[in-house]
Amino acid sequence: MPELRKDPISGRWVIISVERGKRPSDFAARISAKKGGFCAFCEGNERTTPPEIMAFRPAGMSSNSAGWSLRVVPNKFPALSIEGNEDRVGDGIFDQMNGLGAHEVIIECPDHHHTLSTMPLKSVEDTLWAFHHRINDLKKDKRFKYVLIFKNEGEEAGASLEHTHTQLIALPIVPQLVEEEIYQSKQYYSYKERCIFCDIIRQESASGKRVISENEHFIALAPFAPRSPFETIIMPKNHESSYMQNNHYPQLAHILQHTLKQIDKVLYMPPYNLMIHTSPFKDEQNAYYHWHIEIIPKLTKIAGFEWGSGFYVNPVPPEESARFMREVEV
Amino acid sequence: MPELRKDPISGRWVIISVERGKRPSDFAARISAKKGGFCAFCEGNERTTPPEIMAFRPAGMSSNSAGWSLRVVPNKFPALSIEGNEDRVGDGIFDQMNGLGAHEVIIECPDHHHTLSTMPLKSVEDTLWAFHHRINDLKKDKRFKYVLIFKNEGEEAGASLEHTHTQLIALPIVPQLVEEEIYQSKQYYSYKERCIFCDIIRQESASGKRVISENEHFIALAPFAPRSPFETIIMPKNHESSYMQNNHYPQLAHILQHTLKQIDKVLYMPPYNLMIHTSPFKDEQNAYYHWHIEIIPKLTKIAGFEWGSGFYVNPVPPEESARFMREVEV
Repeated sequence: MPELRKDPISGRWVIISVERGKRPSDFAARISAKKGGFCAFCEGNERTTPPEIMAFRPAGMSSNSAGWSLRVVPNKFPALSIEGNEDRVGDGIFDQMNGLGAHEVIIECPDHHHTLSTMPLKSVEDTLWAFHHRINDLKKDKRFKYVLIFKNEGEEAGASLEHTHTQLIALPIVPQLVEEEIYQSKQYYSYKERCIFCDIIRQESASGKRVISENEHFIALAPFAPRSPFETIIMPKNHESSYMQNNHYPQLAHILQHTLKQIDKVLYMPPYNLMIHTSPFKDEQNAYYHWHIEIIPKLTKIAGFEWGSGFYVNPVPPEESARFMREVEV
Repeated sequence: MPELRKDPISGRWVIISVERGKRPSDFAARISAKKGGFCAFCEGNERTTPPEIMAFRPAGMSSNSAGWSLRVVPNKFPALSIEGNEDRVGDGIFDQMNGLGAHEVIIECPDHHHTLSTMPLKSVEDTLWAFHHRINDLKKDKRFKYVLIFKNEGEEAGASLEHTHTQLIALPIVPQLVEEEIYQSKQYYSYKERCIFCDIIRQESASGKRVISENEHFIALAPFAPRSPFETIIMPKNHESSYMQNNHYPQLAHILQHTLKQIDKVLYMPPYNLMIHTSPFKDEQNAYYHWHIEIIPKLTKIAGFEWGSGFYVNPVPPEESARFMREVEV
């Protein structure tokens, strides 16, 4: 019998369709080999991107030249514009505002052929620091209420360039999905006076059946009600409402890269999306919300049922995906 | 400057990214030609589907045999199971229930190579009647709270079989997206004492800039804040809260097929998803909600930004998509 499961954080229901149960090898969505060719993100082509916002390179070297280990540049084709104000206006029944926002690209590594799972661990750690620096800087701009960090790996997951990179969008409004998570977390907190994420970590650690891995400070889990097969969530084990409170970068880099290596090995390098959810600027330190990283391998299609209902149909129970991940050697 | 627009019905914000402005020919997602071969939905293969639930065929002919013009059969690989009860249970912090539901397939036409836009208009009209009959029948089962009707055309839109078909899922809970639309519609109604959809129709008819077509009883619009390029909504012009109140099938069949022909012509037969949203059984006749059909051509990818935020980035303003649709000859 299929199961309907409710995600306690988003309030979203998913259908775990065991009768349609699939093994990892049933998903053929491997990332095509990177073809190479001219690439604006490769070392030596620094002048073909907009001027860099920040970079890690040895002291004394000039910006926008070779020798860097990580660069952050404005997106050349930004979804939002950094100029102006939000200027909210109505048009009869409709509401709109200027598409104000910052859209930046974090190039984690100069090597065209690496991904987050294959690059040196030091590059992953530097990337996590770069997120910290950029959020800290963008927070000073009072027009912004939230910074969303996300990564699309592979064309099928929405990447338009082969060279691996993460994106950051600073927004004048808190995204709807974050608002929904905060709403549910606050409801839970007002009832229990405990963080819902902390309670989930306690319950999952005790049962162990959806735990993928853990180290001193972080835990990787298959969520109870995942939207997608092999969806994974990484959370700090102690309560931290904001990514900005995190100061265990080596451990976070390690569990993140380890998780991505497991995904690559079990699913043959699938395209994936990665997102960081953290508390909005206006209430960054709180007791009810808990920052986390979500990873969604791109294995199933969003179709009419999902578009029409907001439900997701997932053919792999998270207990099974967690077991596959735990058992693979990386 | 890009625009942030809010959809008044779902409360969802979208980014209309005019700088990334695209013309219809920039979207290459044409449906691959149907290959044919053995097909369980073709005439003569009736015994290879589960036994039919209903069919349109000349009087006196036996069921599950050739000669039909439309068939409804149970889905051979249902996402939900028709047996049992919902049996809600908790597991610590988590909630789940049995995956109870009906999952049916409406085969609109025996011809393997037709789609809703090419089949005889009579078949489209019969399909709309079949929806009515099936909802009416499933409503009698008190375990169900909602029936979602949806169609995936083309592999990229999630269709696993070439032969065109629509699906129906009866659910023990009202889908989250429908609940959200109802919530917003009720809020508006409690403030204005008018249906928000009726107000949108009035405003859109007056301005005309997002109107695609209309006939005596229906209007097709590009929504003010579409998630996807060329998203289209078809609504009855007079207030109807439920699809079951609709009794203008010839006119609905006509505007639906005409809209799909326009989409096929402008976008070179794209894959698409189609969904019907209607009032849940428990309050089917009301003053605040308005049933409608949503059509989403599959032209863009859901990537990390959308997964993480619930925002959508749409590179085609609806004023432009409506103009392309109005101007094409079909």
